[in-house]
Amino acid sequence: MDVTKIKDPSFLKELNSKECQALADEIRRFLIESVSRTGGHLSSNLGVVELTIALHKVFDSPHDKIFFDVGHQCYTHKILTGRADQFKTLRQFHGLSGFQKRCESEHDVWEAGHSSTSLSAALAMAVSRDLNHENYAVVPVIGDGSMSSGESLEALNQIGELQKKMIIIFNDNNMSISQNVGALTQAFSRLRTSNSYTGFKEDLRRVLNKNDLGQSVLNGLTIFKDNIKKGIIEAGIFDEFNLDYLGPVDGHNIKELIRILKVAKNNKGPVVVHVLTKKGKGYPFCEEDTEGKWHGVSSFNPKTGISYSTTPEGHLSWSSIFSETLVRMAKEDKQICAITPAMITGSKLEKFFALYPDRSFDCGIAEEHAATFAAGLALSGQRPFLSLYSSFLQRAYDQINHDICRMDLPVVIGIDRAGLVGEDGDTHHGVFDIGLLRCLPKMILAQPKDSREAQKLLYTAMQQSHPFAIRYPRGTVVYDELEQLEMLPIGSWTFFNDHPDHRCVVVSYGPDVDRILSKVIANDLPVTVVNARFLKPLDETAMVELAQRHLPVIVYETDMLAGGLSSAMLEWANDHGCLLPLKRIGIADRYVEHGSINQIKTAVQIDINTLFDQIRILLER
Amino acid sequence: MDVTKIKDPSFLKELNSKECQALADEIRRFLIESVSRTGGHLSSNLGVVELTIALHKVFDSPHDKIFFDVGHQCYTHKILTGRADQFKTLRQFHGLSGFQKRCESEHDVWEAGHSSTSLSAALAMAVSRDLNHENYAVVPVIGDGSMSSGESLEALNQIGELQKKMIIIFNDNNMSISQNVGALTQAFSRLRTSNSYTGFKEDLRRVLNKNDLGQSVLNGLTIFKDNIKKGIIEAGIFDEFNLDYLGPVDGHNIKELIRILKVAKNNKGPVVVHVLTKKGKGYPFCEEDTEGKWHGVSSFNPKTGISYSTTPEGHLSWSSIFSETLVRMAKEDKQICAITPAMITGSKLEKFFALYPDRSFDCGIAEEHAATFAAGLALSGQRPFLSLYSSFLQRAYDQINHDICRMDLPVVIGIDRAGLVGEDGDTHHGVFDIGLLRCLPKMILAQPKDSREAQKLLYTAMQQSHPFAIRYPRGTVVYDELEQLEMLPIGSWTFFNDHPDHRCVVVSYGPDVDRILSKVIANDLPVTVVNARFLKPLDETAMVELAQRHLPVIVYETDMLAGGLSSAMLEWANDHGCLLPLKRIGIADRYVEHGSINQIKTAVQIDINTLFDQIRILLER
Repeated sequence: MDVTKIKDPSFLKELNSKECQALADEIRRFLIESVSRTGGHLSSNLGVVELTIALHKVFDSPHDKIFFDVGHQCYTHKILTGRADQFKTLRQFHGLSGFQKRCESEHDVWEAGHSSTSLSAALAMAVSRDLNHENYAVVPVIGDGSMSSGESLEALNQIGELQKKMIIIFNDNNMSISQNVGALTQAFSRLRTSNSYTGFKEDLRRVLNKNDLGQSVLNGLTIFKDNIKKGIIEAGIFDEFNLDYLGPVDGHNIKELIRILKVAKNNKGPVVVHVLTKKGKGYPFCEEDTEGKWHGVSSFNPKTGISYSTTPEGHLSWSSIFSETLVRMAKEDKQICAITPAMITGSKLEKFFALYPDRSFDCGIAEEHAATFAAGLALSGQRPFLSLYSSFLQRAYDQINHDICRMDLPVVIGIDRAGLVGEDGDTHHGVFDIGLLRCLPKMILAQPKDSREAQKLLYTAMQQSHPFAIRYPRGTVVYDELEQLEMLPIGSWTFFNDHPDHRCVVVSYGPDVDRILSKVIANDLPVTVVNARFLKPLDETAMVELAQRHLPVIVYETDMLAGGLSSAMLEWANDHGCLLPLKRIGIADRYVEHGSINQIKTAVQIDINTLFDQIRILLER
Repeated sequence: MDVTKIKDPSFLKELNSKECQALADEIRRFLIESVSRTGGHLSSNLGVVELTIALHKVFDSPHDKIFFDVGHQCYTHKILTGRADQFKTLRQFHGLSGFQKRCESEHDVWEAGHSSTSLSAALAMAVSRDLNHENYAVVPVIGDGSMSSGESLEALNQIGELQKKMIIIFNDNNMSISQNVGALTQAFSRLRTSNSYTGFKEDLRRVLNKNDLGQSVLNGLTIFKDNIKKGIIEAGIFDEFNLDYLGPVDGHNIKELIRILKVAKNNKGPVVVHVLTKKGKGYPFCEEDTEGKWHGVSSFNPKTGISYSTTPEGHLSWSSIFSETLVRMAKEDKQICAITPAMITGSKLEKFFALYPDRSFDCGIAEEHAATFAAGLALSGQRPFLSLYSSFLQRAYDQINHDICRMDLPVVIGIDRAGLVGEDGDTHHGVFDIGLLRCLPKMILAQPKDSREAQKLLYTAMQQSHPFAIRYPRGTVVYDELEQLEMLPIGSWTFFNDHPDHRCVVVSYGPDVDRILSKVIANDLPVTVVNARFLKPLDETAMVELAQRHLPVIVYETDMLAGGLSSAMLEWANDHGCLLPLKRIGIADRYVEHGSINQIKTAVQIDINTLFDQIRILLER
């Protein structure tokens, strides 16, 4: 079957299990082939092919609301809802999103990108349905990693209370992006082993017969309540939340999936369907991956599994540079600890975790706890390095404020994936953190322009005694390892290509500084480039200097304009009576779509050509 | 015994249970008497008198780390650690804090104010202890309301995994500030009833004998593991998190408390001690309160329980004005729903909840879930009013960004307790929300100057289709009910006392506008007062007007300067080529201590006299 011909999932109603399985095989081939060309999320999608087919066979989307927590595992859903032909544009500018998008299809009823929002949304849909006296199924699909996160557990608490009808598909692959951690992982594992699926079926039949409910039960009565439920299965943690439970079921057996989903469909209250899936199912490279290397991939050779993406000679990812430096420092300084919320691989902390297991903490998808835990470590005399992706740091804002900054604790926050991230799109761009963190008392906020400055900033952060956040982007940069780590003066900026005759100043931070500088020099422009490596505190001497020159000043940021560096500069200049009008380039008041970083920079007019057009206009005056 | 003579808790070692109980009675008398004069948190403190005594008798503070989640229930701890004589200054400017403060005593080893941080901190302390090869007990005390919150559950997940020795005191009074909600409340209730304390004791003895461990076990071995544990007690949810469990124990029986804490002290891994307490114990007015009216109180007559604080004639709290208006609108508009994270009473939503129970949602202490739930309701066609205290809204920042604003959903956020809150101090001041929310695309942010504008703003918010947040402070204002609800133009400011000859403009928002205006008029000053009732979007016409007048402009805010209204005005003026230097009055880059709002405003130089001094300087130029 040609999956690109699928218009909507209605055709599934006519397929038998065998035909569904053949479709699953076809979709899997399509996914591997397609993602090998475009890149994208692979392992998680391969894991839920049969499950998604079964869901769309048993339920009627979009009348019934089927949606995916986080959403990166929705590819089969996209195929079944008529979007296979667009997969060649996956995650590309103006192409198919890698997540569910309401604007893309009526079958995408919820959007996310961050984890653990699906259960809250599902409860809201179920509540709204009942308020409106409507009748549809609400079917969130959530993984075990997301299920263990705080917001999910908060949602379960109210779902168990309100007892609204909904079918929670618990997609248990025992992985987040990499291997799961935490006590709940063990709890889920107990569920897996205590209730064999065969046992479930047998017991179900037995109990049904025992209760004289016969076939009618299978067609619709509430059967999994209280004592009867207890007789069938151990529901463990879900029992504690007062939820009905079905499973576990083999997530790659479509026939059994359909059977259990039909039972769940007729349940009256909230029911958890425990589905065991194998991340990467059907593609050996993915199946064997325990570190999450196949979670999100760039294009690769599907035969060999070898990625086509190469790191330029001498380059290293920003994450790696920070991790390498941290490892180096931790050898001497026994108080240095590393904390990550489920991002060991993404944040390149594997080496630190291997070398210093006692000082390494994977908190699971739990940014709130991770930040307070870091505060507690700092308060107890350790030197924690808290690694957070910028967009997920948003989850820990209150803890960074209330626990870390308010108590003025020396937590070093590594803000990974700061700035635009490209293909993951609006949910993942790390463009809000400057506005968030620069307004916090006690906070020091910096971004290095290159690998040498990165090492110095991390070293500086660890030598001082206040909250210190260092942001760095996705991607790689030339790695130049320092012979000797050294301090940078806090709140210091540096001037490059400076000359008394220059007629324009560009202020920027991060790797853009060198990009601008090399282009300025290459074009022999009379432009001074300022590396505003500290976003907070500002370099007050540099600020005065800038004001005194009476030159046009452009502030070039690839983050949100509102509240960003230029905003801080305007505040400072205003309060110090300096006349310092700025030409501000940055992201206007909007969310930014997905695409390559260069494409979206151009689209939102913050690309380097826009900057140089501006420079030329100023120079021509 | 005179509790003001207590220097530190060491004297407790010499007391027998009876003497401890006498001390408890004395402390309870002292608390009622003292709080009746100063105001403060009462019910929660009365509930943990015996527990706190037992903790300080069994453990050695500050060597052992005893600390309280949130911290408002630490009064007995303050008394036992030598601070009773300062209770007359409780929550007053430069007086004793109502929470634990590290600067106040070496016995205060952690600080909070927001809930559910204690378990993360405890794990960090235990980890740090073991890294340093030290030996002390870590003893967080956490209530059942806080325990059900996401961050606590995230912490339990890692505590259960790492198995560090710690004693979690689970203070179960079946209340948050008011009655608890959620499925876990039922789970805790099952624990309470399935394990009677007597049963526990009997079973414990039996199991110990059965296992031939004799007296030595009571003195220190790990006895509550796996099967043995199962034989003694049902640990329910705590089992799922792989935690040892002891209890429940009567939290008002010091002898039994001491006994169980001694057992817990010798446990090897993390153990939960389930303590049943009665909120308000020993003071009938508090004991009978199910709505949380005695949670935090102002001064009152201890005999009659009648508060000395009175609402001025014709005044109503800002919370009430919003709730009344919401009730009024909800009568017509059946889509209007109300959502609060455990703050029905504080946010004055009792009437809405009573009249429209189907559209009323108390999510428990779960701001993250509450915000996404609101997004889900809005997406499903409801009109949710999400009530959040400003400082707790910080917990939902990511959900407001990622779920509400990114999907441009018409959630109306009522930001209660915006601005300085006074006596609760640095953890509770709601001074960051403008900087947080104005940087979010799609967000509309406003604050009414009076009750009429409050009603109009809420009405306006419900008539439009974008995220719309309205902030309002603690306290009361004259209530003037509108005959007819009407819309306000979004992004409109208003000018008061305006005249062409005026020589200065003051821009402000909220109730400060009328305060400033009346003082301007009373002193016949040539000053125009602008009500910047929309913090986002700004009134662009008004901005141009301001710039064109070439008058000194003072922006008066009682929130953080960084990122606030004046920052937005500077950005706008800069980007539109307007020369608009501002004299900015607002909170500098610091946390603000506790005290009366007037005192702390003066202390941080944002009181109205500072403003008028500034006005006079400008007028004299």
